[in-house]
Amino acid sequence: MAVNGWTRKSLLTIEDLKPDEISLILDKADEIKRISDKSDPIYSSLRGKRVINLFMEPSTRTRVAFEVAAKSLGADIITITGEASSLTKGETLKDTALNVQALGADAIIIRHSSPGSPLFLSKVVDVPIINAGDGAHEHPSQALLDIYTLRDKLGDLKDKKITILGDILFSRVARSNLWGLTKLGAKVTLAGPPTLVPPDFKHLGARVTHDPQTALEDADAVMLLRIQHERQSVSHFPSLSEYANVFGLGPESTKWMKEKAIILHPGPLNRGVEIDSAIADSSRSVILEQVSNGIAVRMAIMHLCISTS
Amino acid sequence: MAVNGWTRKSLLTIEDLKPDEISLILDKADEIKRISDKSDPIYSSLRGKRVINLFMEPSTRTRVAFEVAAKSLGADIITITGEASSLTKGETLKDTALNVQALGADAIIIRHSSPGSPLFLSKVVDVPIINAGDGAHEHPSQALLDIYTLRDKLGDLKDKKITILGDILFSRVARSNLWGLTKLGAKVTLAGPPTLVPPDFKHLGARVTHDPQTALEDADAVMLLRIQHERQSVSHFPSLSEYANVFGLGPESTKWMKEKAIILHPGPLNRGVEIDSAIADSSRSVILEQVSNGIAVRMAIMHLCISTS
Amino acid sequence: MAVNGWTRKSLLTIEDLKPDEISLILDKADEIKRISDKSDPIYSSLRGKRVINLFMEPSTRTRVAFEVAAKSLGADIITITGEASSLTKGETLKDTALNVQALGADAIIIRHSSPGSPLFLSKVVDVPIINAGDGAHEHPSQALLDIYTLRDKLGDLKDKKITILGDILFSRVARSNLWGLTKLGAKVTLAGPPTLVPPDFKHLGARVTHDPQTALEDADAVMLLRIQHERQSVSHFPSLSEYANVFGLGPESTKWMKEKAIILHPGPLNRGVEIDSAIADSSRSVILEQVSNGIAVRMAIMHLCISTS
Repeated sequence: MAVNGWTRKSLLTIEDLKPDEISLILDKADEIKRISDKSDPIYSSLRGKRVINLFMEPSTRTRVAFEVAAKSLGADIITITGEASSLTKGETLKDTALNVQALGADAIIIRHSSPGSPLFLSKVVDVPIINAGDGAHEHPSQALLDIYTLRDKLGDLKDKKITILGDILFSRVARSNLWGLTKLGAKVTLAGPPTLVPPDFKHLGARVTHDPQTALEDADAVMLLRIQHERQSVSHFPSLSEYANVFGLGPESTKWMKEKAIILHPGPLNRGVEIDSAIADSSRSVILEQVSNGIAVRMAIMHLCISTS
Repeated sequence: MAVNGWTRKSLLTIEDLKPDEISLILDKADEIKRISDKSDPIYSSLRGKRVINLFMEPSTRTRVAFEVAAKSLGADIITITGEASSLTKGETLKDTALNVQALGADAIIIRHSSPGSPLFLSKVVDVPIINAGDGAHEHPSQALLDIYTLRDKLGDLKDKKITILGDILFSRVARSNLWGLTKLGAKVTLAGPPTLVPPDFKHLGARVTHDPQTALEDADAVMLLRIQHERQSVSHFPSLSEYANVFGLGPESTKWMKEKAIILHPGPLNRGVEIDSAIADSSRSVILEQVSNGIAVRMAIMHLCISTS
Repeated sequence: MAVNGWTRKSLLTIEDLKPDEISLILDKADEIKRISDKSDPIYSSLRGKRVINLFMEPSTRTRVAFEVAAKSLGADIITITGEASSLTKGETLKDTALNVQALGADAIIIRHSSPGSPLFLSKVVDVPIINAGDGAHEHPSQALLDIYTLRDKLGDLKDKKITILGDILFSRVARSNLWGLTKLGAKVTLAGPPTLVPPDFKHLGARVTHDPQTALEDADAVMLLRIQHERQSVSHFPSLSEYANVFGLGPESTKWMKEKAIILHPGPLNRGVEIDSAIADSSRSVILEQVSNGIAVRMAIMHLCISTS
């Protein structure tokens, strides 16, 4: 049965969603954010449901956000982490998922290093699967909270210019955002050094630039990505300070930005690397709003997928 | 005070239980499984009770099953794992248990590598102790869910033939099942290579065989045990593939089985070692039903031991 | 808004508290301990509040005690441990705290190795901060449960003689107790080998002695501190057995104590090092009462700081 026209049981990718489906999630998150009455039925819409947070890759931020969101809907949530898990001892992911379902899960939130594992699970089990990040593939809930924040700040995203700047190469966050933003009509620029932003990424429907000024000067919003320290090498970039000098958002490069352009970052911040500390704390930054919008967006996702499944 | 004739505060072993007590737990689990109304009083029978899951040996499967079962009865459950535990820093198990009780535990679920530690704890603290596996000694809740599943599928277990096949030598699962099945009148065969199933195990009241065909051909149910990879050595067995060839349940050996004989496994599965993958997924296999019966059985155990203590 | 005259949002140190504030917490804990009716409003006074247990330093005992206390007040509590935390990957403590607040925390319990970090956080975030131990600085909830237990056993602490014996040098427990006991008018003696109890600690308002008999003979209560094994070296003390012989509380040294003097220890016990095993289990020992009083005291702290914030 569909809630308000939502017909999916699982949220696996942004790539698969129709623009209307994205809007429906964002609208539901909006509605949730505006509810101030703690006795509203939304807060008990998952009462009696058991959600399993299956985090086979370490994460605190996303895991806690899903825990908070699930509990806010009245669900009971149990987290299983890969490190602690003897579920997985010599066991296939399929068997792990079937076991989790047999333990009484009404839904599974999965983070896994293998791209496509949420899709695979959705074919193996009967309960809703929510992708909390699958390898370098997608991170739908992160993109939806980013897009929610952008829409909240910029209004209708049609023809808005959004620059994603940083370590794009293996970024599931960039990939999910690119799909989502493009579907809503935004114009996306992917920017960073050529080693992290290969020129052929323009085939994905984005403008690609390796020049920071070009990347920043016409953007309505700049979404920074975290620089992965482990990437630091001659082949990707020679040093963090060199990256910071050229592509880090600092007092100089911020001057290129439009006056009202905003700054997003999925966290955790490397202050002084991809962003100058004062700029991270400036009024341009909506970084903490992203975190808090993430609760409403994940509540919307879970409410839509789980409450009537 | 007794619930329906149940008089024990703790569940420490299967060896100590009378046949009627085993049946009482199974009957209570049956009753719980048949309740479909979420407002039934069973679901709040442990409301306000605080259960501590004291897992001094790693386990995800059993730990999560107890968490789900406790929450399903309305209890509050807090898990303390040995790895994370500074409770145990230079502290005796007795002190740990006394501290857990002083922290307000109304019951303690204990998994520990030392045989007899649950019995020891039951003498140290006043609250119910439930054994979730103590070294190579017993694993009562696993045996009870196995026996529940067998009774559910085969009916009265009197004179039923049950083969336990695999790494019996240090198996607490085998030991608890042997006690429980024998008490209910079943005929148990212990099977596997002589290094894993010593001939003198027949003194425990079971038939012992090292011949796979003998083990399988008259069984009403075959309970496979997980092969512990760390056992692989010349003294126990030379290779996993040799074990799989001789004792693994495959398309050939399954032909020896009676048409309606069922297959159990406590998980996690080593597909291709103790069981062929297609057979694990066949209609003979009740492996996932075991997992899900485990919730009802553990709810029954906790309800009986804790609700009136 | 103040509850019963309590005006603080956070509990950061004992040093900052006025004597009346300490008494107010102890009185509230007393009131909570005496409530037997589970429907009393205290048990739902934090209903709908989300407490984050941010444990950047390992601890099971204190963490579980705060979890139990928070749940007993009806709060929802989520624990984030430093080890598991990708929140902190290259992230400042300030950013971690701001993120935790943005995730919807109504209060943060913080344990951290840096002295002063709770104070710092209280300036960064808007929600109440409760210090669960900050480096060698303070451990207010431990001191309050110790002082609660002392007052419960000895009555008014004015002019009572309390000896703190053991590894005082970097002990946040000793420091917090010293502040609290002195404020309530008790006479504190700090005792142990000179390497662990420097003579200049008398500037803190305590008597300092390195003679066990002097330390014990006029005390109304002896609070033992855990000997940190990692301190064992020539510079601090040559061996555990030598420490045990001279400063461990054993059958001989206990004879020096007044007949009604009681023994406290914050746990975990090193039986045979700082205390003889039989003495730890004797009627003089109030060690397990401390643990259980810790729940009521932490409920009082959280109720006062969080319920009206």
